[in-house]
Amino acid sequence: MADEVKLYRTWSSRFSLRIVWALHIKGIEYEAIFEDLSHKSPQLLQYNPVHKKVPVLVHKGKPICESLVILEYIDETWKETTPLLPQDPYEKAMARFWAKFVDDKLLPSVWSVFTEKGYEAKKEALVPAVQNLEIIEEQLKEKNFFGGESIGYVDLALGWIAYLLDVFEEVIDLKLFDAHKFPLLSGWMKNFCDAPAIKQHLPPRDKLVTRFQLFHEKFQTAN
Amino acid sequence: MADEVKLYRTWSSRFSLRIVWALHIKGIEYEAIFEDLSHKSPQLLQYNPVHKKVPVLVHKGKPICESLVILEYIDETWKETTPLLPQDPYEKAMARFWAKFVDDKLLPSVWSVFTEKGYEAKKEALVPAVQNLEIIEEQLKEKNFFGGESIGYVDLALGWIAYLLDVFEEVIDLKLFDAHKFPLLSGWMKNFCDAPAIKQHLPPRDKLVTRFQLFHEKFQTAN
Repeated sequence: MADEVKLYRTWSSRFSLRIVWALHIKGIEYEAIFEDLSHKSPQLLQYNPVHKKVPVLVHKGKPICESLVILEYIDETWKETTPLLPQDPYEKAMARFWAKFVDDKLLPSVWSVFTEKGYEAKKEALVPAVQNLEIIEEQLKEKNFFGGESIGYVDLALGWIAYLLDVFEEVIDLKLFDAHKFPLLSGWMKNFCDAPAIKQHLPPRDKLVTRFQLFHEKFQTAN
Repeated sequence: MADEVKLYRTWSSRFSLRIVWALHIKGIEYEAIFEDLSHKSPQLLQYNPVHKKVPVLVHKGKPICESLVILEYIDETWKETTPLLPQDPYEKAMARFWAKFVDDKLLPSVWSVFTEKGYEAKKEALVPAVQNLEIIEEQLKEKNFFGGESIGYVDLALGWIAYLLDVFEEVIDLKLFDAHKFPLLSGWMKNFCDAPAIKQHLPPRDKLVTRFQLFHEKFQTAN
Protein backbone atom coordinates (compact mmCIF):
# COMPACT_ATOMS: atom_id res chain seq x y z
CA MET A 1 0.00 0.00 0.00
CA ALA A 2 1.63 3.18 -1.27
CA ASP A 3 0.36 5.43 1.50
CA GLU A 4 1.16 3.06 4.35
CA VAL A 5 2.46 4.23 7.71
CA LYS A 6 4.82 2.09 9.75
CA LEU A 7 6.19 2.87 13.18
CA TYR A 8 9.34 1.21 14.48
CA ARG A 9 9.07 1.34 18.27
CA THR A 10 9.61 -0.60 21.48
CA TRP A 11 6.90 -1.28 24.02
CA SER A 12 8.40 1.12 26.59
CA SER A 13 10.33 3.83 24.70
CA ARG A 14 9.10 7.21 25.93
CA PHE A 15 10.08 8.78 22.61
CA SER A 16 8.15 6.16 20.62
CA LEU A 17 5.06 6.71 22.76
CA ARG A 18 4.90 10.35 21.68
CA ILE A 19 4.36 9.09 18.13
CA VAL A 20 1.92 6.33 19.11
CA TRP A 21 -0.22 8.91 20.94
CA ALA A 22 -0.05 11.43 18.06
CA LEU A 23 -1.11 8.80 15.51
CA HIS A 24 -4.08 7.79 17.68
CA ILE A 25 -5.08 11.40 18.40
CA LYS A 26 -5.08 12.07 14.66
CA GLY A 27 -6.78 8.75 13.85
CA ILE A 28 -4.02 7.66 11.47
CA GLU A 29 -3.89 3.93 10.75
CA TYR A 30 -0.44 2.44 11.04
CA GLU A 31 1.48 -0.78 11.50
CA ALA A 32 3.62 -1.00 14.64
CA ILE A 33 6.88 -2.90 14.37
CA PHE A 34 8.27 -3.78 17.79
CA GLU A 35 12.05 -3.70 17.94
CA ASP A 36 14.31 -5.59 20.32
CA LEU A 37 17.08 -3.05 20.88
CA SER A 38 19.58 -5.75 21.80
CA HIS A 39 19.02 -7.21 18.30
CA LYS A 40 18.09 -4.29 16.09
CA SER A 41 16.43 -5.25 12.82
CA PRO A 42 18.20 -4.57 9.49
CA GLN A 43 15.25 -2.30 8.62
CA LEU A 44 15.79 -0.10 11.69
CA LEU A 45 19.51 0.22 10.92
CA GLN A 46 18.71 1.02 7.30
CA TYR A 47 16.07 3.61 8.18
CA ASN A 48 18.01 5.31 10.99
CA PRO A 49 21.70 4.77 10.16
CA VAL A 50 22.79 7.89 12.07
CA HIS A 51 21.27 7.20 15.50
CA LYS A 52 20.14 3.54 15.15
CA LYS A 53 17.25 4.30 17.51
CA VAL A 54 13.48 4.12 17.72
CA PRO A 55 11.13 5.74 16.94
CA VAL A 56 11.27 5.74 13.16
CA LEU A 57 8.14 6.61 11.21
CA VAL A 58 8.07 5.28 7.65
CA HIS A 59 5.52 6.98 5.42
CA LYS A 60 5.19 6.06 1.74
CA GLY A 61 8.46 4.17 2.09
CA LYS A 62 10.40 7.19 3.43
CA PRO A 63 11.80 7.20 6.97
CA ILE A 64 11.62 10.08 9.46
CA CYS A 65 13.64 9.94 12.71
CA GLU A 66 13.77 11.95 15.96
CA SER A 67 10.50 12.07 17.87
CA LEU A 68 9.95 15.86 17.83
CA VAL A 69 10.74 15.97 14.11
CA ILE A 70 8.26 13.13 13.53
CA LEU A 71 5.54 14.95 15.50
CA GLU A 72 5.90 18.04 13.32
CA TYR A 73 5.88 15.86 10.18
CA ILE A 74 2.68 14.15 11.28
CA ASP A 75 1.05 17.50 12.03
CA GLU A 76 2.04 18.98 8.67
CA THR A 77 1.12 15.88 6.65
CA TRP A 78 -2.26 15.12 8.24
CA LYS A 79 -3.40 18.72 8.59
CA GLU A 80 -7.13 18.08 8.46
CA THR A 81 -7.44 16.40 11.88
CA THR A 82 -6.73 17.68 15.41
CA PRO A 83 -3.79 20.08 15.08
CA LEU A 84 -0.90 19.38 17.46
CA LEU A 85 0.92 22.70 17.02
CA PRO A 86 -0.66 26.17 17.05
CA GLN A 87 -0.97 27.97 13.69
CA ASP A 88 0.32 31.33 14.92
CA PRO A 89 4.12 31.57 14.37
CA TYR A 90 4.75 32.99 17.86
CA GLU A 91 2.64 30.37 19.64
CA LYS A 92 4.32 27.71 17.50
CA ALA A 93 7.75 29.03 18.50
CA MET A 94 6.70 28.82 22.17
CA ALA A 95 5.59 25.19 21.72
CA ARG A 96 8.94 24.34 20.09
CA PHE A 97 10.82 26.14 22.86
CA TRP A 98 9.06 24.15 25.60
CA ALA A 99 9.38 20.79 23.85
CA LYS A 100 13.10 21.49 23.46
CA PHE A 101 13.28 22.43 27.15
CA VAL A 102 11.69 19.07 28.03
CA ASP A 103 14.28 17.16 26.00
CA ASP A 104 17.36 19.26 26.73
CA LYS A 105 16.81 20.15 30.39
CA LEU A 106 13.93 18.42 32.18
CA LEU A 107 14.45 14.89 30.92
CA PRO A 108 18.25 14.75 31.57
CA SER A 109 17.79 16.28 35.02
CA VAL A 110 15.14 13.72 36.07
CA TRP A 111 17.13 10.90 34.48
CA SER A 112 20.17 11.90 36.46
CA VAL A 113 18.23 11.50 39.75
CA PHE A 114 17.48 7.98 38.55
CA THR A 115 21.04 7.13 37.51
CA GLU A 116 23.07 8.80 40.31
CA LYS A 117 24.56 6.35 42.80
CA GLY A 118 23.33 6.44 46.37
CA TYR A 119 20.90 8.55 48.38
CA GLU A 120 23.08 11.66 48.84
CA ALA A 121 23.98 11.97 45.15
CA LYS A 122 20.34 11.44 44.20
CA LYS A 123 19.20 14.15 46.65
CA GLU A 124 21.68 16.54 45.08
CA ALA A 125 20.52 15.68 41.55
CA LEU A 126 16.95 16.30 42.70
CA VAL A 127 17.54 20.07 43.06
CA PRO A 128 17.81 20.95 39.32
CA ALA A 129 15.12 18.36 38.47
CA VAL A 130 12.63 20.02 40.83
CA GLN A 131 13.61 23.48 39.54
CA ASN A 132 12.84 22.32 36.00
CA LEU A 133 9.49 20.90 37.13
CA GLU A 134 8.71 24.28 38.72
CA ILE A 135 9.43 26.01 35.42
CA ILE A 136 7.01 23.63 33.68
CA GLU A 137 4.36 24.09 36.41
CA GLU A 138 4.47 27.84 35.75
CA GLN A 139 3.55 27.26 32.08
CA LEU A 140 0.28 25.56 32.94
CA LYS A 141 -1.40 28.59 34.49
CA GLU A 142 -4.98 28.98 33.25
CA LYS A 143 -4.69 25.99 30.93
CA ASN A 144 -5.83 22.36 31.01
CA PHE A 145 -3.13 21.29 28.61
CA PHE A 146 -0.01 22.98 27.30
CA GLY A 147 -1.83 22.92 23.97
CA GLY A 148 -4.82 24.78 25.54
CA GLU A 149 -8.07 22.80 25.68
CA SER A 150 -6.69 19.66 24.05
CA ILE A 151 -3.47 17.65 23.97
CA GLY A 152 -0.82 19.14 21.70
CA TYR A 153 2.86 18.98 20.82
CA VAL A 154 4.23 20.02 24.25
CA ASP A 155 1.85 17.65 26.07
CA LEU A 156 3.09 14.76 23.93
CA ALA A 157 6.72 15.76 24.52
CA LEU A 158 6.12 15.87 28.26
CA GLY A 159 3.89 12.78 28.33
CA TRP A 160 6.55 10.53 29.87
CA ILE A 161 6.39 12.32 33.23
CA ALA A 162 2.66 11.48 33.52
CA TYR A 163 3.28 7.73 33.79
CA LEU A 164 7.00 7.41 34.56
CA LEU A 165 7.72 9.72 37.53
CA ASP A 166 5.86 7.49 39.93
CA VAL A 167 7.52 4.36 38.49
CA PHE A 168 10.91 6.03 39.06
CA GLU A 169 9.89 6.93 42.63
CA GLU A 170 8.99 3.33 43.41
CA VAL A 171 12.21 1.99 41.90
CA ILE A 172 14.63 4.45 43.54
CA ASP A 173 12.60 4.81 46.75
CA LEU A 174 12.79 8.61 46.74
CA LYS A 175 10.04 11.21 46.32
CA LEU A 176 10.54 13.05 43.04
CA PHE A 177 7.22 14.78 42.78
CA ASP A 178 5.01 16.30 45.48
CA ALA A 179 1.47 16.73 44.10
CA HIS A 180 0.77 19.55 46.62
CA LYS A 181 3.76 21.49 45.37
CA PHE A 182 2.75 20.98 41.75
CA PRO A 183 -1.05 21.23 41.69
CA LEU A 184 -1.26 22.21 38.01
CA LEU A 185 1.17 19.58 36.77
CA SER A 186 -0.55 17.05 38.98
CA GLY A 187 -3.94 17.90 37.44
CA TRP A 188 -2.39 17.82 33.98
CA MET A 189 -0.98 14.32 34.58
CA LYS A 190 -4.45 13.06 35.46
CA ASN A 191 -6.12 14.76 32.49
CA PHE A 192 -3.40 13.52 30.17
CA CYS A 193 -3.58 9.90 31.28
CA ASP A 194 -7.39 9.96 31.20
CA ALA A 195 -7.56 11.03 27.54
CA PRO A 196 -8.64 7.95 25.53
CA ALA A 197 -5.80 8.14 22.96
CA ILE A 198 -3.30 8.10 25.83
CA LYS A 199 -5.03 5.78 28.29
CA GLN A 200 -5.30 2.97 25.78
CA HIS A 201 -1.65 3.27 24.86
CA LEU A 202 0.28 3.38 28.10
CA PRO A 203 2.75 0.59 28.87
CA PRO A 204 1.74 -1.72 31.76
CA ARG A 205 3.00 -0.26 35.04
CA ASP A 206 4.24 -3.56 36.50
CA LYS A 207 6.35 -4.27 33.40
CA LEU A 208 7.81 -0.74 33.63
CA VAL A 209 8.72 -1.23 37.29
CA THR A 210 10.51 -4.50 36.48
CA ARG A 211 12.33 -2.94 33.54
CA PHE A 212 13.51 0.13 35.45
CA GLN A 213 14.48 -1.98 38.48
CA LEU A 214 16.93 -3.83 36.22
CA PHE A 215 18.21 -0.56 34.78
CA HIS A 216 18.60 0.92 38.24
CA GLU A 217 20.57 -2.03 39.58
CA LYS A 218 22.89 -1.70 36.59
CA PHE A 219 23.50 2.00 37.29
CA GLN A 220 23.99 1.44 41.01
CA THR A 221 26.61 -1.27 40.51
CA ALA A 222 28.41 0.22 37.49
CA ASN A 223 31.93 1.55 37.95
CA MET B 1 7.78 51.16 16.54
CA ALA B 2 5.25 48.36 16.97
CA ASP B 3 6.76 46.03 14.38
CA GLU B 4 10.35 46.47 15.50
CA VAL B 5 12.85 43.62 15.56
CA LYS B 6 15.62 43.48 18.14
CA LEU B 7 18.34 40.89 18.40
CA TYR B 8 20.23 40.31 21.65
CA ARG B 9 23.58 38.83 20.64
CA THR B 10 27.30 38.86 21.27
CA TRP B 11 29.92 39.61 18.64
CA SER B 12 31.14 35.99 18.54
CA SER B 13 28.22 33.71 19.54
CA ARG B 14 27.84 31.03 16.86
CA PHE B 15 24.16 30.67 17.74
CA SER B 16 23.56 34.42 17.43
CA LEU B 17 25.26 34.50 14.04
CA ARG B 18 22.68 32.08 12.66
CA ILE B 19 20.06 34.72 13.35
CA VAL B 20 22.16 37.63 12.06
CA TRP B 21 22.68 35.78 8.77
CA ALA B 22 18.99 34.81 8.47
CA LEU B 23 17.86 38.41 9.04
CA HIS B 24 20.25 39.67 6.36
CA ILE B 25 19.33 36.92 3.89
CA LYS B 26 15.69 37.88 4.33
CA GLY B 27 16.41 41.61 4.28
CA ILE B 28 14.76 42.21 7.65
CA GLU B 29 15.73 45.44 9.40
CA TYR B 30 16.65 45.00 13.03
CA GLU B 31 18.46 46.56 15.93
CA ALA B 32 21.37 44.56 17.35
CA ILE B 33 21.96 44.74 21.09
CA PHE B 34 25.40 43.49 22.04
CA GLU B 35 25.49 41.70 25.37
CA ASP B 36 28.44 41.27 27.70
CA LEU B 37 27.80 37.78 29.07
CA SER B 38 29.81 38.48 32.20
CA HIS B 39 27.32 41.30 32.95
CA LYS B 40 24.05 40.23 31.39
CA SER B 41 21.54 43.04 30.90
CA PRO B 42 18.25 43.04 32.85
CA GLN B 43 16.48 42.85 29.46
CA LEU B 44 18.27 39.63 28.49
CA LEU B 45 17.42 38.05 31.85
CA GLN B 46 13.82 39.19 31.50
CA TYR B 47 13.47 37.92 27.92
CA ASN B 48 15.23 34.58 28.45
CA PRO B 49 14.73 33.73 32.14
CA VAL B 50 15.06 29.97 31.52
CA HIS B 51 18.44 29.82 29.77
CA LYS B 52 19.73 33.39 30.28
CA LYS B 53 21.52 33.14 26.94
CA VAL B 54 21.83 34.86 23.59
CA PRO B 55 20.42 34.91 20.99
CA VAL B 56 17.03 36.35 21.82
CA LEU B 57 14.90 37.81 19.05
CA VAL B 58 12.31 40.32 20.20
CA HIS B 59 9.57 40.95 17.65
CA LYS B 60 6.67 43.32 18.40
CA GLY B 61 7.81 43.25 22.03
CA LYS B 62 7.67 39.44 22.31
CA PRO B 63 10.83 37.40 22.89
CA ILE B 64 11.80 34.17 21.12
CA CYS B 65 14.75 32.09 22.36
CA GLU B 66 16.79 29.13 21.06
CA SER B 67 18.48 29.73 17.71
CA LEU B 68 16.76 26.93 15.73
CA VAL B 69 13.37 27.97 17.10
CA ILE B 70 14.12 31.58 16.11
CA LEU B 71 15.10 30.54 12.57
CA GLU B 72 11.77 28.76 12.09
CA TYR B 73 9.92 31.77 13.53
CA ILE B 74 11.69 34.12 11.12
CA ASP B 75 10.89 31.84 8.18
CA GLU B 76 7.21 31.56 9.11
CA THR B 77 6.78 35.26 9.92
CA TRP B 78 8.55 36.73 6.88
CA LYS B 79 7.29 34.19 4.37
CA GLU B 80 7.47 36.38 1.31
CA THR B 81 11.28 36.54 1.04
CA THR B 82 13.87 33.78 0.49
CA PRO B 83 12.52 30.67 2.23
CA LEU B 84 14.95 29.03 4.64
CA LEU B 85 13.07 25.74 5.04
CA PRO B 86 11.57 23.62 2.24
CA GLN B 87 7.77 23.64 1.87
CA ASP B 88 7.37 19.88 1.46
CA PRO B 89 6.76 18.24 4.88
CA TYR B 90 9.25 15.42 4.22
CA GLU B 91 12.01 17.75 3.03
CA LYS B 92 11.26 20.01 6.00
CA ALA B 93 11.57 17.04 8.37
CA MET B 94 14.95 16.21 6.82
CA ALA B 95 16.16 19.80 7.35
CA ARG B 96 15.04 19.65 11.00
CA PHE B 97 16.73 16.27 11.45
CA TRP B 98 20.07 17.57 10.14
CA ALA B 99 19.98 20.82 12.09
CA LYS B 100 19.32 18.77 15.23
CA PHE B 101 22.21 16.47 14.32
CA VAL B 102 24.49 19.51 14.05
CA ASP B 103 23.51 20.73 17.53
CA ASP B 104 23.21 17.36 19.33
CA LYS B 105 26.12 15.44 17.77
CA LEU B 106 28.48 17.41 15.54
CA LEU B 107 28.92 20.52 17.66
CA PRO B 108 29.54 18.70 21.00
CA SER B 109 31.97 16.29 19.32
CA VAL B 110 34.04 19.09 17.76
CA TRP B 111 33.86 21.12 20.97
CA SER B 112 35.18 18.18 22.94
CA VAL B 113 38.32 18.07 20.72
CA PHE B 114 38.78 21.70 21.69
CA THR B 115 38.22 21.22 25.41
CA GLU B 116 39.98 17.88 26.05
CA LYS B 117 43.26 18.20 27.88
CA GLY B 118 46.47 17.25 26.09
CA TYR B 119 47.35 15.83 22.68
CA GLU B 120 46.37 12.19 23.30
CA ALA B 121 42.92 13.01 24.68
CA LYS B 122 42.32 15.41 21.80
CA LYS B 123 43.32 12.77 19.23
CA GLU B 124 40.85 10.38 20.80
CA ALA B 125 38.06 12.97 20.77
CA LEU B 126 38.85 13.59 17.10
CA VAL B 127 37.50 10.16 16.06
CA PRO B 128 33.77 10.82 16.66
CA ALA B 129 34.15 14.43 15.44
CA VAL B 130 35.56 13.25 12.10
CA GLN B 131 32.87 10.55 11.83
CA ASN B 132 30.21 13.23 12.28
CA LEU B 133 31.86 15.42 9.63
CA GLU B 134 31.81 12.40 7.28
CA ILE B 135 28.08 11.99 7.86
CA ILE B 136 27.58 15.66 6.97
CA GLU B 137 29.85 15.38 3.88
CA GLU B 138 27.60 12.57 2.62
CA GLN B 139 24.57 14.89 2.72
CA LEU B 140 26.11 17.39 0.30
CA LYS B 141 26.17 15.08 -2.73
CA GLU B 142 24.90 16.84 -5.86
CA LYS B 143 24.13 20.02 -3.96
CA ASN B 144 25.81 23.41 -3.56
CA PHE B 145 24.12 24.04 -0.25
CA PHE B 146 22.19 21.82 2.13
CA GLY B 147 19.23 24.00 1.16
CA GLY B 148 19.84 23.20 -2.56
CA GLU B 149 20.86 26.16 -4.71
CA SER B 150 20.77 28.73 -1.92
CA ILE B 151 21.56 28.98 1.79
CA GLY B 152 18.85 27.49 4.00
CA TYR B 153 18.11 26.36 7.55
CA VAL B 154 20.73 23.56 7.71
CA ASP B 155 23.41 25.77 6.17
CA LEU B 156 22.76 28.41 8.83
CA ALA B 157 22.83 25.77 11.58
CA LEU B 158 26.16 24.46 10.29
CA GLY B 159 27.58 27.90 9.50
CA TRP B 160 29.95 27.93 12.49
CA ILE B 161 32.17 25.22 11.01
CA ALA B 162 32.82 27.42 7.94
CA TYR B 163 34.70 30.05 9.93
CA LEU B 164 35.53 28.36 13.27
CA LEU B 165 37.17 25.02 12.42
CA ASP B 166 40.32 26.66 11.19
CA VAL B 167 40.40 29.02 14.20
CA PHE B 168 40.15 25.96 16.47
CA GLU B 169 42.98 24.26 14.52
CA GLU B 170 45.26 27.25 14.99
CA VAL B 171 44.48 27.51 18.71
CA ILE B 172 44.85 23.81 19.58
CA ASP B 173 47.60 23.14 17.01
CA LEU B 174 45.89 20.01 15.67
CA LYS B 175 44.39 19.30 12.23
CA LEU B 176 40.62 18.90 12.57
CA PHE B 177 39.65 19.06 8.96
CA ASP B 178 41.42 17.76 5.86
CA ALA B 179 40.00 19.51 2.76
CA HIS B 180 41.03 16.57 0.54
CA LYS B 181 39.04 14.17 2.68
CA PHE B 182 36.01 16.48 2.67
CA PRO B 183 35.88 17.96 -0.84
CA LEU B 184 32.14 18.72 -0.71
CA LEU B 185 32.18 20.28 2.75
CA SER B 186 35.30 22.20 1.80
CA GLY B 187 33.54 23.60 -1.29
CA TRP B 188 30.47 24.37 0.79
CA MET B 189 32.55 26.32 3.33
CA LYS B 190 33.92 28.52 0.55
CA ASN B 191 30.50 29.07 -1.06
CA PHE B 192 28.95 29.78 2.33
CA CYS B 193 31.55 32.34 3.39
CA ASP B 194 31.47 34.01 -0.04
CA ALA B 195 27.72 34.68 0.09
CA PRO B 196 27.27 38.43 0.71
CA ALA B 197 24.87 38.05 3.68
CA ILE B 198 27.44 35.82 5.40
CA LYS B 199 30.71 37.49 4.29
CA GLN B 200 29.66 40.86 5.65
CA HIS B 201 28.69 39.37 9.00
CA LEU B 202 31.56 37.13 10.05
CA PRO B 203 33.46 38.00 13.24
CA PRO B 204 37.08 39.16 12.70
CA ARG B 205 39.35 36.10 12.62
CA ASP B 206 42.12 37.62 14.77
CA LYS B 207 39.65 38.51 17.53
CA LEU B 208 38.28 34.94 17.42
CA VAL B 209 41.78 33.47 17.73
CA THR B 210 42.50 35.62 20.79
CA ARG B 211 39.14 34.75 22.35
CA PHE B 212 39.51 31.00 21.84
CA GLN B 213 43.16 31.05 22.97
CA LEU B 214 41.94 32.38 26.33
CA PHE B 215 39.18 29.74 26.46
CA HIS B 216 41.63 27.00 25.57
CA GLU B 217 44.12 27.99 28.25
CA LYS B 218 41.28 27.89 30.77
CA PHE B 219 40.28 24.36 29.73
CA GLN B 220 43.86 23.10 29.66
CA THR B 221 44.59 24.35 33.17
CA ALA B 222 41.21 23.55 34.79
CA ASN B 223 41.04 20.75 37.34
